[in-house]
Amino acid sequence: MKTFDIHPTDKTIVPAIQAKIDNLNKPKGSLGRLEEIARQICLVQHTLEPSLAHPCHLLFGGDHGIEREGVSVSPRCVTWQQMINFTHGGGGVNMLCRQHGFKLRIVDVGVDYDFTSIDGIIDRKIACGTRNFLYESAMTEVEFNLAIQIGCDLVDDCITEGCRVLSIGEMGIANTSPSSIWMHLFSGIPLADCIGAGAGLDTPGIRHKYEILSKAVTNYQENIRQSSPITHIRYFGGFEMVAAVGAMLKAAEKHLVILIDGFIMTACALAAVQLYPAAQDYMIFTHCGDESGHKRMLDAMGAKALLHLGLRLGEGTGALCAFPIVDSAVRMMNEMNNFDNAHITKYF
Amino acid sequence: MKTFDIHPTDKTIVPAIQAKIDNLNKPKGSLGRLEEIARQICLVQHTLEPSLAHPCHLLFGGDHGIEREGVSVSPRCVTWQQMINFTHGGGGVNMLCRQHGFKLRIVDVGVDYDFTSIDGIIDRKIACGTRNFLYESAMTEVEFNLAIQIGCDLVDDCITEGCRVLSIGEMGIANTSPSSIWMHLFSGIPLADCIGAGAGLDTPGIRHKYEILSKAVTNYQENIRQSSPITHIRYFGGFEMVAAVGAMLKAAEKHLVILIDGFIMTACALAAVQLYPAAQDYMIFTHCGDESGHKRMLDAMGAKALLHLGLRLGEGTGALCAFPIVDSAVRMMNEMNNFDNAHITKYF
Repeated sequence: MKTFDIHPTDKTIVPAIQAKIDNLNKPKGSLGRLEEIARQICLVQHTLEPSLAHPCHLLFGGDHGIEREGVSVSPRCVTWQQMINFTHGGGGVNMLCRQHGFKLRIVDVGVDYDFTSIDGIIDRKIACGTRNFLYESAMTEVEFNLAIQIGCDLVDDCITEGCRVLSIGEMGIANTSPSSIWMHLFSGIPLADCIGAGAGLDTPGIRHKYEILSKAVTNYQENIRQSSPITHIRYFGGFEMVAAVGAMLKAAEKHLVILIDGFIMTACALAAVQLYPAAQDYMIFTHCGDESGHKRMLDAMGAKALLHLGLRLGEGTGALCAFPIVDSAVRMMNEMNNFDNAHITKYF
Repeated sequence: MKTFDIHPTDKTIVPAIQAKIDNLNKPKGSLGRLEEIARQICLVQHTLEPSLAHPCHLLFGGDHGIEREGVSVSPRCVTWQQMINFTHGGGGVNMLCRQHGFKLRIVDVGVDYDFTSIDGIIDRKIACGTRNFLYESAMTEVEFNLAIQIGCDLVDDCITEGCRVLSIGEMGIANTSPSSIWMHLFSGIPLADCIGAGAGLDTPGIRHKYEILSKAVTNYQENIRQSSPITHIRYFGGFEMVAAVGAMLKAAEKHLVILIDGFIMTACALAAVQLYPAAQDYMIFTHCGDESGHKRMLDAMGAKALLHLGLRLGEGTGALCAFPIVDSAVRMMNEMNNFDNAHITKYF
């Protein structure tokens, strides 16, 4: 796998950031999490005047071999149908990108459908879905490296346009399954606690999903002589998920603010941080859903989500919903008066 | 007190609303609280195509006699200083109104300062602050009725401009004190559990606040022969708070969507709902802060806040921060494709 030049943010400016925040015309700390977010973004951009110029949303699509085992309530065809729907502007992700001024890039990394006649989908297809990780590695090493590179390339395209804040989403029926396994392998949390309803499984469905995933992990441990974070990622990951990991690492390298969506994107963030722990400095965790284990995964990362809206649509919708709050934090730094120019008695 | 013509929303259209939501191109229920908010707004406006046209933010300012008892960390002069700061656009409320396209009306209902030379403040001053409710009623019946009417008049002005969504904030040093007492009297929750740090009291400060407020409630119960919700409101309320109650009732009468901010505005909502229970149908509770008791007050109302951002600035900042999420809910109803026009397999 290619290497990334990712450093922790430079904490020497923390006192200057805090002094600016504490002199804004408000009781100390009274803007709560907006102040936390402002501190983080100032560190990411190494400035007291942060910017969220040219927000971009990358939506990676891919299909999963494991879908053949009936681990998802939705059929595989929904992946390609939704990808096409997004090109028409009618999906959840579309309305939120319009609302918040995000440029949306819809990227086919591995959907099981021929989109050649469809406008609006960026063709970076690696294969028509991954292999079934119940029996074998979801992707080869070549495919893995390609998926990482696709994520990097897309981020480079965003940066060329002046992008300072990146949001990432996914479309891939059955991709809560690899996410649960990544969570299990990277956090040590028992597999059963990492598995939830996905887009709407009932209790027997969840039990079946557990049995399949449990078997898959056992087979993996028997098949692979020497496992590592990279083999975990490659054996179970979806193309869209590995592209997201690549995008996160490239974005951290380039000091972008990265908005991390729900369960699946948090699993990708967890994977990215296994490879480069400093990448987490650049990530804002935007939404904690009801998917079983999501809060535990965030806890394992020491992360606290901004929103709890019960979303479980995917596509990056949670990250987009949180953007205005992140934007408010930046505006606080740039637009609020301080105690001097507002002529207000500083009360503590 | 004047009467209001407030009816519960008409629930007969619930099946039609739900059918529309369930046919949008997403797993059933997967947009979580956006779906709840969408249902509520459709009911408020009695339509399947809701609108949040011309959002308005009313910022009511007033001073409090109880401030003289040292119940607040901030001195009284901060009320007028902040009111002037708001006219210059440098406050937290200003940046959020700009960000989300709200027309801001800054209304002096009872600030202890002469603003006659200041542009940008609507002069509806009743008096230079309320009386000290440790010893006597904060306001007379005439003043109470006037404050209610001011709230109504301002909402009428908003409606004239086509406003469909109203957000309300306050500026009034010491106004967590009357809010805590309203909460106590209306919910039956012990006074000690209704009192928090306000804008930043330490533990001895909170103890002092409790002793003063406890004494005030005892005196009230001895002074007033026959108490009622209206006497509770009048005896302890601030002018800015009673104006907010009036605004909420008028807005409910006129079927506006009402965004309820943090602790103080939740106390005003609680007061409004004592007078007209159906008014709650029109209210969206936007932010639950860390102020002790806020969550308990929301629980007592059966309300669930949208955001938990640790804000404690007041001014209506929590309501404004939540607006984009409310807006997303409305966009979901109006902009998302459904399973028919998106050509997607309906998966359950």
